[in-house]
Amino acid sequence: MTGKKQYRPMDAMIYPRFEGLRSFMRLPHVTDLHDVDFAVVGVPFDTGATFRVGARFGPAGIRDNSLLLRPYNPVLDVDIFQHCSGVDYGDLPVIPGYLSESHLQIEEGARTVLASGTTPIFLGGDHSVSLPLLRTVAAKHGPVALIQFDSHSDLWPGYFGEKDTHGTPFRRAVEEGLIVVERSVQVGLRGPLYEKSDTAMSREAGMLDITGPELHAMGIEEALRRIRDRVGAGPAYLTFDIDFVDPAFAPGTGTPEVGGFNGYQSLALVRGLQDISFVGFDLVEVMPAYDPASVTSLLAANIIYEFISIIALQKSRKVRG
Amino acid sequence: MTGKKQYRPMDAMIYPRFEGLRSFMRLPHVTDLHDVDFAVVGVPFDTGATFRVGARFGPAGIRDNSLLLRPYNPVLDVDIFQHCSGVDYGDLPVIPGYLSESHLQIEEGARTVLASGTTPIFLGGDHSVSLPLLRTVAAKHGPVALIQFDSHSDLWPGYFGEKDTHGTPFRRAVEEGLIVVERSVQVGLRGPLYEKSDTAMSREAGMLDITGPELHAMGIEEALRRIRDRVGAGPAYLTFDIDFVDPAFAPGTGTPEVGGFNGYQSLALVRGLQDISFVGFDLVEVMPAYDPASVTSLLAANIIYEFISIIALQKSRKVRG
Amino acid sequence: MTGKKQYRPMDAMIYPRFEGLRSFMRLPHVTDLHDVDFAVVGVPFDTGATFRVGARFGPAGIRDNSLLLRPYNPVLDVDIFQHCSGVDYGDLPVIPGYLSESHLQIEEGARTVLASGTTPIFLGGDHSVSLPLLRTVAAKHGPVALIQFDSHSDLWPGYFGEKDTHGTPFRRAVEEGLIVVERSVQVGLRGPLYEKSDTAMSREAGMLDITGPELHAMGIEEALRRIRDRVGAGPAYLTFDIDFVDPAFAPGTGTPEVGGFNGYQSLALVRGLQDISFVGFDLVEVMPAYDPASVTSLLAANIIYEFISIIALQKSRKVRG
Amino acid sequence: MTGKKQYRPMDAMIYPRFEGLRSFMRLPHVTDLHDVDFAVVGVPFDTGATFRVGARFGPAGIRDNSLLLRPYNPVLDVDIFQHCSGVDYGDLPVIPGYLSESHLQIEEGARTVLASGTTPIFLGGDHSVSLPLLRTVAAKHGPVALIQFDSHSDLWPGYFGEKDTHGTPFRRAVEEGLIVVERSVQVGLRGPLYEKSDTAMSREAGMLDITGPELHAMGIEEALRRIRDRVGAGPAYLTFDIDFVDPAFAPGTGTPEVGGFNGYQSLALVRGLQDISFVGFDLVEVMPAYDPASVTSLLAANIIYEFISIIALQKSRKVRG
Amino acid sequence: MTGKKQYRPMDAMIYPRFEGLRSFMRLPHVTDLHDVDFAVVGVPFDTGATFRVGARFGPAGIRDNSLLLRPYNPVLDVDIFQHCSGVDYGDLPVIPGYLSESHLQIEEGARTVLASGTTPIFLGGDHSVSLPLLRTVAAKHGPVALIQFDSHSDLWPGYFGEKDTHGTPFRRAVEEGLIVVERSVQVGLRGPLYEKSDTAMSREAGMLDITGPELHAMGIEEALRRIRDRVGAGPAYLTFDIDFVDPAFAPGTGTPEVGGFNGYQSLALVRGLQDISFVGFDLVEVMPAYDPASVTSLLAANIIYEFISIIALQKSRKVRG
Amino acid sequence: MTGKKQYRPMDAMIYPRFEGLRSFMRLPHVTDLHDVDFAVVGVPFDTGATFRVGARFGPAGIRDNSLLLRPYNPVLDVDIFQHCSGVDYGDLPVIPGYLSESHLQIEEGARTVLASGTTPIFLGGDHSVSLPLLRTVAAKHGPVALIQFDSHSDLWPGYFGEKDTHGTPFRRAVEEGLIVVERSVQVGLRGPLYEKSDTAMSREAGMLDITGPELHAMGIEEALRRIRDRVGAGPAYLTFDIDFVDPAFAPGTGTPEVGGFNGYQSLALVRGLQDISFVGFDLVEVMPAYDPASVTSLLAANIIYEFISIIALQKSRKVRG
Repeated sequence: MTGKKQYRPMDAMIYPRFEGLRSFMRLPHVTDLHDVDFAVVGVPFDTGATFRVGARFGPAGIRDNSLLLRPYNPVLDVDIFQHCSGVDYGDLPVIPGYLSESHLQIEEGARTVLASGTTPIFLGGDHSVSLPLLRTVAAKHGPVALIQFDSHSDLWPGYFGEKDTHGTPFRRAVEEGLIVVERSVQVGLRGPLYEKSDTAMSREAGMLDITGPELHAMGIEEALRRIRDRVGAGPAYLTFDIDFVDPAFAPGTGTPEVGGFNGYQSLALVRGLQDISFVGFDLVEVMPAYDPASVTSLLAANIIYEFISIIALQKSRKVRG
Repeated sequence: MTGKKQYRPMDAMIYPRFEGLRSFMRLPHVTDLHDVDFAVVGVPFDTGATFRVGARFGPAGIRDNSLLLRPYNPVLDVDIFQHCSGVDYGDLPVIPGYLSESHLQIEEGARTVLASGTTPIFLGGDHSVSLPLLRTVAAKHGPVALIQFDSHSDLWPGYFGEKDTHGTPFRRAVEEGLIVVERSVQVGLRGPLYEKSDTAMSREAGMLDITGPELHAMGIEEALRRIRDRVGAGPAYLTFDIDFVDPAFAPGTGTPEVGGFNGYQSLALVRGLQDISFVGFDLVEVMPAYDPASVTSLLAANIIYEFISIIALQKSRKVRG
Repeated sequence: MTGKKQYRPMDAMIYPRFEGLRSFMRLPHVTDLHDVDFAVVGVPFDTGATFRVGARFGPAGIRDNSLLLRPYNPVLDVDIFQHCSGVDYGDLPVIPGYLSESHLQIEEGARTVLASGTTPIFLGGDHSVSLPLLRTVAAKHGPVALIQFDSHSDLWPGYFGEKDTHGTPFRRAVEEGLIVVERSVQVGLRGPLYEKSDTAMSREAGMLDITGPELHAMGIEEALRRIRDRVGAGPAYLTFDIDFVDPAFAPGTGTPEVGGFNGYQSLALVRGLQDISFVGFDLVEVMPAYDPASVTSLLAANIIYEFISIIALQKSRKVRG
Repeated sequence: MTGKKQYRPMDAMIYPRFEGLRSFMRLPHVTDLHDVDFAVVGVPFDTGATFRVGARFGPAGIRDNSLLLRPYNPVLDVDIFQHCSGVDYGDLPVIPGYLSESHLQIEEGARTVLASGTTPIFLGGDHSVSLPLLRTVAAKHGPVALIQFDSHSDLWPGYFGEKDTHGTPFRRAVEEGLIVVERSVQVGLRGPLYEKSDTAMSREAGMLDITGPELHAMGIEEALRRIRDRVGAGPAYLTFDIDFVDPAFAPGTGTPEVGGFNGYQSLALVRGLQDISFVGFDLVEVMPAYDPASVTSLLAANIIYEFISIIALQKSRKVRG
Repeated sequence: MTGKKQYRPMDAMIYPRFEGLRSFMRLPHVTDLHDVDFAVVGVPFDTGATFRVGARFGPAGIRDNSLLLRPYNPVLDVDIFQHCSGVDYGDLPVIPGYLSESHLQIEEGARTVLASGTTPIFLGGDHSVSLPLLRTVAAKHGPVALIQFDSHSDLWPGYFGEKDTHGTPFRRAVEEGLIVVERSVQVGLRGPLYEKSDTAMSREAGMLDITGPELHAMGIEEALRRIRDRVGAGPAYLTFDIDFVDPAFAPGTGTPEVGGFNGYQSLALVRGLQDISFVGFDLVEVMPAYDPASVTSLLAANIIYEFISIIALQKSRKVRG
Repeated sequence: MTGKKQYRPMDAMIYPRFEGLRSFMRLPHVTDLHDVDFAVVGVPFDTGATFRVGARFGPAGIRDNSLLLRPYNPVLDVDIFQHCSGVDYGDLPVIPGYLSESHLQIEEGARTVLASGTTPIFLGGDHSVSLPLLRTVAAKHGPVALIQFDSHSDLWPGYFGEKDTHGTPFRRAVEEGLIVVERSVQVGLRGPLYEKSDTAMSREAGMLDITGPELHAMGIEEALRRIRDRVGAGPAYLTFDIDFVDPAFAPGTGTPEVGGFNGYQSLALVRGLQDISFVGFDLVEVMPAYDPASVTSLLAANIIYEFISIIALQKSRKVRG
């Protein structure tokens, strides 16, 4: 990695982990992304939330709980900063209370990030932010496969007569052709629905769905096999709604659904996607105000750590390859 | 469903889910139960509690966390209000601090509810309330099979020289002949006991017990088979003490026992009883003051949702049948 | 009060105060306001919030903490329901995330309430809701005097290039001529500002301001004298932003400012306005998710109780007069 | 103090304040009260509570927050254990859920304590415990003057048709002649009441009342003068309901009333009674489950410290005198 | 058990479980350990913590949550106090902020405990306390097998240039020859590491490690088989770092790692070691300030209960044997 | 301010206040202090704490709650960044658990800060950090006047036989001649003491003390007069222990003392010192883990804002002068 600026976390042997400004993993806060392999980017927007609200504080909560992350991932066997330079980009500007204006700002902000060639990891915010993010991703990479971990399909046509909320982004994304539906999959859907036809929304949109009860029944390995088969070799985008996880493990979210998955299963699912060609990631719907023991933000930080590990692993293969 | 008043939740597409007075599932608050298929009825009494106290706020906590419930149950495949009219009846009057007087009031209040022909779902309150409820149920239906999910048998003869606490209701119920013991089962019993003979209390009372460790070992499907075999075709009453669930999933209760069951298992057990002929349900021992992330009340609301779904499913079969 | 439906709270000697659905003060939930003297009306809208968010749960939090209120106010010497019939109207529909649409809905909803002749008490929601409420009030009563308790003037021209947030409603109200500025007063303004010219905003708008430090220095009695002098005899509207109160007494709000006023002072200020001719009231910016000991909602409920007491007191005078 | 066992707290220079079992002020846990000057005695009973419940954990909460107390009181200028031997007696046995049985147990337990000649300081528990305590005190000392700090008079005739709750103890005490009403005073009464006649209950019972608003107006010094004048030289009993204090300073209680008094005022009032001939004290209605920052228990522990300081001060005068 | 003082918990049928000073399981607080079979001993020292801090309050938190424990263990089928006399010894003195001085004090304090012949159960405190405890144990019993449940190996050579923190005790213990490494095992290691070589630390030290992912894959029974094989018949010491457990079940700890084990698995692992010849136990890193629902302390208390049950079981066999 | 880099907060009209990494007041994180007028510097060290611990998270908590601060101070009438360039320097490295080593590191770190000529504002950490900070300050400026707001004098000779804890820094500072005692003052001392002689410690050390009760009696204005008279014109250092403030306003601290001062009084005291020649400031003992509603950190951030305002005000006078 000669001739390139190598960004890495503060040294924990000099600065104990409780020290320093709260960037993700205590990475440098850098906005010039030249030669940066991955960038963690906050998208603190939550005007799309239809029930509990406060995901605008999600990025801060996740950063606060990322301090304990260390650079070597023993499960994926990768020493991240041997292969990668990574930064915390800070937050994209948004206008709280103004959905369409903010979506434009997010799209524009994300465009700058993507233009640099870095792999972005976005921290929501509510799930509505995935729509402008996918617009930017598709503008650069063309339509992508979507891998969505979520307890809700977020494919509803609209709420209260309006088209954009955190329950509608993927309906819009499908309509706009941002997603290659036949390579896409929604995983973990569960909980009461408005009507029976809701159960068919994923398939009607052309996507595969693996419901929560199905995932409980088939297990992680089988699910991974199906996801990998579905997504294949092209570019993919991973969106992780923290409400995929059971409320005991992730209470701090806006529309929790019981009967979900634990932390170990969540990590295993992400790690198992190490061979997918990801062009971007987001993790959304973390709400610190509903997370008194901080376990939600802590798990979210660890899931993001797996995203980063996959980026580093793929980087190391290219170098070695 | 002609000629009948059809009660259903507020419309979430007009009134967002955080709106309106906090009835269960935002059902109408109605006390005339004529032609009502199910009624959610609070029994906010906790004078029977021997350790932590505060289950008098259980009904309010559960209602607050029932707002996200939607009408279609995808696992049981039933669209509840296609088949059912349901209401929140409010709370039965009690006299805090006065156990026998309140038990009489509860019995009387429940009698009015049952007289209407509606299927009642009672929200405790501590577990002592199941005694007057069973008295009312047996007065109407005769002795019933009891299905009890609980970490404690609540069959102790007495506490501190007194006969009525939340640890004694089923001893009293057996003595009074309210329960058909040979059709009854206690599921999930675990945790330290006073003495070895306590392990035999269920069987000595004539009931089947499936202890927590046994349930962990045999799994949900086998347990369901045994419960169904045991209960058979006659009328049954389900009582769900939230301390059946592990404290990570349900910390907000009065006498938590570690090593319990998760939310998914709890839901699966209830759903699996869809063919039992229930004449009533209760869910007890939710204490919001010990539930900082509200996960206990949220899970309780979802378990009650499964009770309602079973009522609706059986209703739909009768109509179709 | 013959021939008129008399609505009053549930009887606490039959139904203990923890019983029943959580309406304000356990008043009946009634939407036909014919012959109703006052109505408590939720406006659970918080899309205008620029920092912390979650005031959409304010009405529920206040209702939960209004259960202890009893009907006789010993300071104002008025037995409310001797003179008044009062109800909880429920919440006005809004569209979370859609500010202008919701403001129209709020205006329309409030119009129905005001058309009935009842005196409305609105529970926010963020402070942006005062704008549509004032539009409705002015449409009925003409421009009114504004009495605003607040640590911020909420007279900013705009935020982020947008005209409507919770920091701008009174700028808009002045521009639209909804307020008689020469009869209006802002009380309690304090805390750091963007620039020096912000200190002149009240006066430039034509209103009197009594800053927080001035109020600390002059005391409650002198402040009341000035407010009464300013407002005079015509119709007035009182808006109470809970951040007027010191964060020790009201932590559960969106933009708290230290160095504020205690509960006793807050109550005394409201009580002291018993002779003003109020045509409406609101209390805004209560956020239960930031109120772990519920003291904010409890104080808010008691402030609203003083509003109600003033209505009853004036009613009793008219009857006697 | 020769020939007498001298009990004093653990030495904080050897055992840091977070060490050891949680007795009050880390005093020895001793039940033989021979030659003990004061004893702190828990009365963890809360079946008399009509709204929030959980004061059974009050003694534990207060003990947990008494660890920082040191032996020298600089305001009263008394070095407590120079003059006194003091212990933590532990808790009196009660039967949760059984009011009259527990009142008998409390009376009996307190009788043993008083028989020893020690000055007792009782930690509630709800306010209903003051009735059996006063019975015991009056049995030993004859009727006593009552000094009650409280936001409620607790003189109601009954609740829900029952005679004993935490709202009725002093009505019963007056009826039973346990109190010398003409030497007694209730201080701090405030908040909404059921009806106008409630404002006269203290005076009708023959006691002086200084309401909350009156106390705010007259100030601590004048109030102390009136209390001292009222009580005079005979034996007196002090009961301190923590809801006397404002909810910002004492949120952890069952029926909080806003507009109350701060910690400094509360301490000053107790200290100012240093010349009263006290035969016993209680402090009631502390509920740790509603006290997330522990400030209620901390203040309660400090108020009890003032009780102890008065005992020590009077002891020192006798010795010197 | 003739001629021997038999210490057992307070009688829950006379003193309800919320009564009394908070000793472990409400055992007598006794420091003369003559003829005592087991003693629970607090070691409230946390100066070794490198991230979150506050385990000095661990013993108090665990005691508070041990009140519900009853004397008969149904899984191990042992009625503890039929075979054992047990006490709460209180806390060992330490000097907060002074690590080497405190380690000497702990060593000295533990020596007194061990000298009595009682089996000690130490409550940390941070994990650094295991070092002086092992020194004491080895001084008495010679080098012992170590069974460590933990998400971290705590074998780091040092932190910040210092040799003693909570991340280093077992490196020191190995260096000092306190542990028979070839009979020792570390179970549950997981989470990000500093570098790849960290994964080899256990094996390089001569110990067996079963990582978290390995344990998830092999299951409890297989792990138990390997641990028993490894440890064999000689004296063993069990150290349980509560961060072995998943943060959903044990959020209240200093360096939580997601993807861990649940309460049932944790109990099963401990119970399965009933045939090991234990000479001592510790449970460390419980931090009540990060445990809002108290589930961490509750689980810790139950794990300690299993330690006690094993002691009793082995005692009963010897007697019978 | 020509030719000089002007650092100021992020623009709140572009980046809403919840955006960005959490530096103090969202100032740039800069470590080159050339031409910087003030620098906020974290000192996250808490090994000196003798009771509750966790002030290492104080700087993070204060930064999180400083986001709402705006640049114009209306009470002091100063527009800060018109006159000043200010930054967040980040945290000084420390070694948790190692007091003397860390004090050296703090001294060295602070020396670099002071060498730049910037005015430092240090965020503790526990109060022991004031000792190395004063060493650095005195090394540069010579002995300084100390203005200490605190409920404890922190002049104890030692604890547990050790010389350095958070209760001893000013004893050491006096011994080392770092303080001009005859120009120094301790304000707010209160609460129980170890013995009577403790009341004389300030005066014996040569300092003036204004105890808490004295301050309550004399009022803010008189206290300010005395402080100003005492301190005079030479260089001064202000240390603010947040436990000066009453626990209702600042519960999140390590050794809270009831009967303290409110937020308004605290701000007024600091503002009133605008003419003192300060060479440095610290604010210590904030513990976020004990601050569930964040009011402690919020008040701390506002007190620091007053420090900054004084710096700016004095700067503006020099420029104008």
